[in-house]
Amino acid sequence: MSNPADVPAPSPSATGGPAAEPLGVALFGLGTVGGGVAERLLRHPQTLTAGRPLSLKHAVVRDVAKNRGIDLPAGVLHDDMRRAVDDPAVAIGVELIGGIPQAFELCRDLLRAGKHVVTANKALICERGPELFALAAEHGRMIRYEAAVAGGVPIVAGLTESLAANRITGIRAILNGTSNFLLSRMADTGASYADALAEAQKRGYAEADPSMDVDGTDAAQKLVILSRLAFGAEVTFADVSMGGIDVLDAEDLSFAEELGCAVKLLAVAKRTERGLELSVRPTLVRRTDAVANINGPMNVVAVRGDLVGDAWFAGPGAGREPTASAVLADLLSIAAARPPFRPRQPDSPLRPVPADELFSRFYLRFRVVDRPHVFAALADILGSSGISLASIIQHAGPEADDNADPSVVSVVVMTHRTSGARLRAAAERWAKLESLRGEPVVMLVAD
Amino acid sequence: MSNPADVPAPSPSATGGPAAEPLGVALFGLGTVGGGVAERLLRHPQTLTAGRPLSLKHAVVRDVAKNRGIDLPAGVLHDDMRRAVDDPAVAIGVELIGGIPQAFELCRDLLRAGKHVVTANKALICERGPELFALAAEHGRMIRYEAAVAGGVPIVAGLTESLAANRITGIRAILNGTSNFLLSRMADTGASYADALAEAQKRGYAEADPSMDVDGTDAAQKLVILSRLAFGAEVTFADVSMGGIDVLDAEDLSFAEELGCAVKLLAVAKRTERGLELSVRPTLVRRTDAVANINGPMNVVAVRGDLVGDAWFAGPGAGREPTASAVLADLLSIAAARPPFRPRQPDSPLRPVPADELFSRFYLRFRVVDRPHVFAALADILGSSGISLASIIQHAGPEADDNADPSVVSVVVMTHRTSGARLRAAAERWAKLESLRGEPVVMLVAD
Repeated sequence: MSNPADVPAPSPSATGGPAAEPLGVALFGLGTVGGGVAERLLRHPQTLTAGRPLSLKHAVVRDVAKNRGIDLPAGVLHDDMRRAVDDPAVAIGVELIGGIPQAFELCRDLLRAGKHVVTANKALICERGPELFALAAEHGRMIRYEAAVAGGVPIVAGLTESLAANRITGIRAILNGTSNFLLSRMADTGASYADALAEAQKRGYAEADPSMDVDGTDAAQKLVILSRLAFGAEVTFADVSMGGIDVLDAEDLSFAEELGCAVKLLAVAKRTERGLELSVRPTLVRRTDAVANINGPMNVVAVRGDLVGDAWFAGPGAGREPTASAVLADLLSIAAARPPFRPRQPDSPLRPVPADELFSRFYLRFRVVDRPHVFAALADILGSSGISLASIIQHAGPEADDNADPSVVSVVVMTHRTSGARLRAAAERWAKLESLRGEPVVMLVAD
Repeated sequence: MSNPADVPAPSPSATGGPAAEPLGVALFGLGTVGGGVAERLLRHPQTLTAGRPLSLKHAVVRDVAKNRGIDLPAGVLHDDMRRAVDDPAVAIGVELIGGIPQAFELCRDLLRAGKHVVTANKALICERGPELFALAAEHGRMIRYEAAVAGGVPIVAGLTESLAANRITGIRAILNGTSNFLLSRMADTGASYADALAEAQKRGYAEADPSMDVDGTDAAQKLVILSRLAFGAEVTFADVSMGGIDVLDAEDLSFAEELGCAVKLLAVAKRTERGLELSVRPTLVRRTDAVANINGPMNVVAVRGDLVGDAWFAGPGAGREPTASAVLADLLSIAAARPPFRPRQPDSPLRPVPADELFSRFYLRFRVVDRPHVFAALADILGSSGISLASIIQHAGPEADDNADPSVVSVVVMTHRTSGARLRAAAERWAKLESLRGEPVVMLVAD
């Protein structure tokens, strides 16, 4: 028989009562986010009132000589990882060094040493999360990673705690702020991809090497993490059908506008009869859809649950302070002794659907030499691949000069719903068309 | 010195391991929301996997004979509140009976009997929350109320847990789905307030007596709850400057459209130099502001924090399943032994700013008899009250027939920023204008 007293009420130490002793924190990495976390821990401890107070014991960096503009107490800054991991005064280690192999070893060593772990490392959680969760369970410690997905947006807590009673049926999200900034900029100003990227780099919204942001990798890693939490599914990075925005031109944004749509790098995870559909792709989203109006470096995650209907979480997906906000929330949850919820278990094993079996409407943009029969050849390829056309846009090109080479024009084909396999088959055939110029652009069209 | 082991890791019982015994739940009230909660507890226990399993022991109702369409196990349904409160097998009581005095007594009795409490009762928490929180602390039990604000939108957890590290500077929210549905409907179709209300009642978005929804009361109660959580401020219902949408006409929506704005019943809580500004008022919001695009029965809460910047939470603000989703999240948090965070403490006492000291731009719509000097009289009143005019809209009325009475026309005045006191002084004077027809409409204009 259950006994009410078995559910502990907040104890004085868990609620930060007068008897509460500080919990020691070790930061590993003191870059943008680490600096933000350290600053708040040192300067505004009075705002961090959940559970036991937090006390910064170590800030472990590679180069102690580097000026970071933070005034740390004596002895806190050093380069000896092992000393921090082994310090019995440390209860929580915060992994902010990035990358995968070294970060994995650090988290493993922290858990083995009986420390709780907080990390903002999406690549680590995507690639090696399951191993770390098993280690944490084995050692009776927590690992939290709110900051690993969508920066300041509390989607890990939202999915696992606030929406815990829901059977999740789908997620639609914008998870990469760099791509979203670039797409907003291109749509608003007509800028080329290259110009928009230069602008984003100047304003701090894109890294010097933005490839993982713009090719879909970053968003796909985050989608894997969210899908495990939402569906309890065993999914990996390879299960995500992925495409980036780096193939788009200004004219694709303007064709989309003409079709009443915005282009978003949309991350989608969807329960279907065939299994779990996972994709990160440039996608046409109707302007009347609220997702189309999330602009600039913002992130949004729309979760569909069987009870809640659609719940939305939006906010800044990156940056020093927003990411620090999420890391600190994890620290506070540990300080308040709030165990995370148990992950969802699927009713039955959820198979990730292969890209060939994904069904969607598509936007296809071709550049072709403007001469008779070119479009007929394209239409023939699509038709004989079993893809039916919903509409076609081709604007009049410059008047051809009889003496000049034929000009190159853009043709946009909107398809009816078809499969990834059919599209792949058609692409193999159109690649051989002698009148084609450059790589055609393929985007999904949201339902 | 701190000891890492002092922070308990999830215990087998807290994580729902095999040893976990069920926690007894008593539902008080089995109406729309109670029915939704009961159904999920009975039919889908496998989805409720956070911490110890939940077991429905009592569903206490006034009239046991009423058919509720739910098949409850034998002995669960009865009308003896005391029996459920005193049952040692019950760990958590869920108050869904509504109203204030009886609900207060029930929650008090539950806490005194050593039970945790979950409630969806915003009026109760607004009016008597502080007494209940003190009782809960005294008895070492939790009281949770995620469903009391914005239905399925997890804003209580968001503010207190996910954004715990932030100093909150402001909240802008749409907290009443009925009003938002009516305003969206009037704007989209040009329907009158009365017609939109009839439509909302037919579709289940408005009660038979919608007065608390449309006059601002419901939203103001929710804003009081959010303000206590966000600012740690001791605020009461009387501190909210309140106005409803029941005074608006279709033409106000169309004037707003002409001004590039939507009308929203906006709930605002804002830290200023003068203290805490609290208002719930029909407000003109620029169409480019995402809040303007939250339509129909949706709720949204935009929280501004010093770290996160702007974080958004949106979703269905009412309804059987969304509200049940929030009640169940609270039950699961208790089942997982997750203590709530300690409320924020203000740096210094935060005084609610009196309505007279609120500053805003205003939209004023007058109906006046269309004859010479009428507008001059109005302008004189505003000017000599120290209110300066930003712009005026008056459309040509029907051509006056020399033999007929002068027609009545609408005049909209947009003011520059001014105080509530000045507006009140002006209103006392314009009320005496003999050419005025009906009560003028006053709306705020969002910054």
